[in-house]
Amino acid sequence: MKAVILSVGDEVVAGQIVDSNAAWLAEQLSELGVEILRHEAVRDVGDEIEAAIRRNAPDCDIIVVSGGLGPTEDDLTRHGVAKAAGVGLILDDASLEHMEQRFYRYGRTMPPRNRIQAMVPEGCTVMPNSHGTAPGFITSCNNACVAAMPGVPREMKAMFADHLRPFIEAMPVARQTVRVERLHLYGMPESSVNQTILHLMQRDANPLVGLLVSEGVITVKLTATARSADEAAALIAPVREECERLLGEAIFGADGQSLHGAVADLFERHGKTLAVAESCTGGLIGHYLTEVPGISRFLLEDLVTYSNQAKTELLGVPAETIAAVGAVSEEVAAAMAEGVRRRAKADIGLSTTGIAGPTGGSPEKPVGLVYCGLAAEGGTHVERLTLVGDRSVVKERAAKYALNILRLHLRIP
Amino acid sequence: MKAVILSVGDEVVAGQIVDSNAAWLAEQLSELGVEILRHEAVRDVGDEIEAAIRRNAPDCDIIVVSGGLGPTEDDLTRHGVAKAAGVGLILDDASLEHMEQRFYRYGRTMPPRNRIQAMVPEGCTVMPNSHGTAPGFITSCNNACVAAMPGVPREMKAMFADHLRPFIEAMPVARQTVRVERLHLYGMPESSVNQTILHLMQRDANPLVGLLVSEGVITVKLTATARSADEAAALIAPVREECERLLGEAIFGADGQSLHGAVADLFERHGKTLAVAESCTGGLIGHYLTEVPGISRFLLEDLVTYSNQAKTELLGVPAETIAAVGAVSEEVAAAMAEGVRRRAKADIGLSTTGIAGPTGGSPEKPVGLVYCGLAAEGGTHVERLTLVGDRSVVKERAAKYALNILRLHLRIP
Repeated sequence: MKAVILSVGDEVVAGQIVDSNAAWLAEQLSELGVEILRHEAVRDVGDEIEAAIRRNAPDCDIIVVSGGLGPTEDDLTRHGVAKAAGVGLILDDASLEHMEQRFYRYGRTMPPRNRIQAMVPEGCTVMPNSHGTAPGFITSCNNACVAAMPGVPREMKAMFADHLRPFIEAMPVARQTVRVERLHLYGMPESSVNQTILHLMQRDANPLVGLLVSEGVITVKLTATARSADEAAALIAPVREECERLLGEAIFGADGQSLHGAVADLFERHGKTLAVAESCTGGLIGHYLTEVPGISRFLLEDLVTYSNQAKTELLGVPAETIAAVGAVSEEVAAAMAEGVRRRAKADIGLSTTGIAGPTGGSPEKPVGLVYCGLAAEGGTHVERLTLVGDRSVVKERAAKYALNILRLHLRIP
Repeated sequence: MKAVILSVGDEVVAGQIVDSNAAWLAEQLSELGVEILRHEAVRDVGDEIEAAIRRNAPDCDIIVVSGGLGPTEDDLTRHGVAKAAGVGLILDDASLEHMEQRFYRYGRTMPPRNRIQAMVPEGCTVMPNSHGTAPGFITSCNNACVAAMPGVPREMKAMFADHLRPFIEAMPVARQTVRVERLHLYGMPESSVNQTILHLMQRDANPLVGLLVSEGVITVKLTATARSADEAAALIAPVREECERLLGEAIFGADGQSLHGAVADLFERHGKTLAVAESCTGGLIGHYLTEVPGISRFLLEDLVTYSNQAKTELLGVPAETIAAVGAVSEEVAAAMAEGVRRRAKADIGLSTTGIAGPTGGSPEKPVGLVYCGLAAEGGTHVERLTLVGDRSVVKERAAKYALNILRLHLRIP
């Protein structure tokens, strides 16, 4: 079964809005076993919408349209689709009543111009809108189904789940079951991951094994296609195990888990407490960790000691050490981690100190040089990183690297 | 002058990646006065790339392609474009040398398979890649220019700025001059902004006045179209002044400035120092402020005092106050701001304490309740916020609200 995704909207075409609807729909349809041929985004012009449907219909089984169902003169999807389908627009009484009641519920009277939203192509299947006014609809052009939904993501997603998804599942066109599992890694270069599992990444393999990289996190995506869910799961299992065996401790989680979520789970398991002293990361480690609900049981405090004075007064880093070797040094990273651990009476102390840039670098201590320290019962350990990127990227990588040091430390039983 | 934007990549079509390149290119081209007809995203299949170029070329003056220029078997943009242009691929010696030197600089030898990246359509104009290996190129199909660039955003953006933009500016096709100016606001509801400048937002106005909202920041976008840059600037000036007059102190900056950047500028102007004590925002205020280079001159420290003990020990918040009124209270917010100001000997102390959720709320103190405190020479001021959203959103809004309180405080001369 083949699909084309069509987004309608001047703002998408002019780049004022990133078209995240298309990506969401593509992912949903892919996981239903539908092959996506391409996406198009066209303007709010009736003829252009009609032309896009006509040119794509011969290639596919369904065209999934989002956007252009609002109440204004610029909302022309229903007109364009009806013309491509060769039918007129008729009033759908149930949709009109739904809309009037919706306005009534909010204490308002429906403006007359909203009436156009209850107009649908003759002979279509109406998809009610549980989160807004305009209904969607399913009609056809040249033997392809054409399904139109609103562009508001909340409305579109609910309509897809409630109506279009069951409709596609019931379509008498061969579909396969697709199962997707994901492993997330940190701390191993992409090229090494690629090299390690290259033999599993054949283009025609089932499951298909792919690599995605986003903000330093590498995801191994396993996609199995089969006739049943059980068969797909059985295809994935041995390949996933092979990946887990080969990639080992670089894997921090699966199926959408974040690095900070994995760290929080380890604190939960061990019941230990943490105190953090940040310099170049400026609070970002604290921000990541406090994205996790309930982290207050483990994270006692996070001291962003930007000035040398704060490092000395709050963490007890000797002023002489800073004077002798500089604030960006192995010694200061160690003293910061030990100092904050002692101050907060925490099980673990974590620290960062470095040069985020763009200024402040020197030949001996270039921009991107960062020390991460970890102090615990067994002693103190400092890692030296040389990161590449602008200020934001250096901060982000240093913060994630520090979280990864913490994860690897907690991982040991 | 008309353009079609074409993205190439299985991952875009399958929805694994949101196509932000297309939006970025559309915005850049729009600001050059180019009319964007539509976007397409197609898979890494040579025939499909060729077909997309052939079907779009008759409608437009230029097709801007991104993606599919990597070194693997799946990178087929150069093949598809060459076929659509009716030419073969030839080796570009300068590109090959650039690539070999790039590998050499990183202490590596270029793998043989990368050689394909130096192949370009015969007779094309090569666009060097200052941030990566694969060059881009400009060729033509059916009287339309076809410009192909890598899909890596960093490489694509630099190549556009350095090569494609000047090429388009020199194209002998009628373009209009478009000038865009932006005003950024915080702290005023979108509906109020809309109401206040509704009379300037007519659909056919020149400049066109639009509102965009992203992460709580409202942007008023003024877009003027004219025959010359001076004329466009003259059209915008009085409307911008009217907006500035009507929206007043809610405007924190213009043309891409961030809220934390505006706050940093005010510190720069006044030469004052800041200390922060965060609870529910967990380090996010520190993270925002430390995105600004040079902030270390003003930001002395940021203490994320998550535990009550840390609030008492580090900030001197009386344990009895916490016991009597709770950590999320006006009194504790005030004591935190005063305590961190005193500890760091800073001019200004800023604090947050609240309930980020999803648990920890009660009927008296619901999730989303946040107190922001500001202590300075003239006294201490606390604001009570009731924010709506999940944990991340509450943290983000509280941090930005606190920065806005700081901005409004520093704004007074």
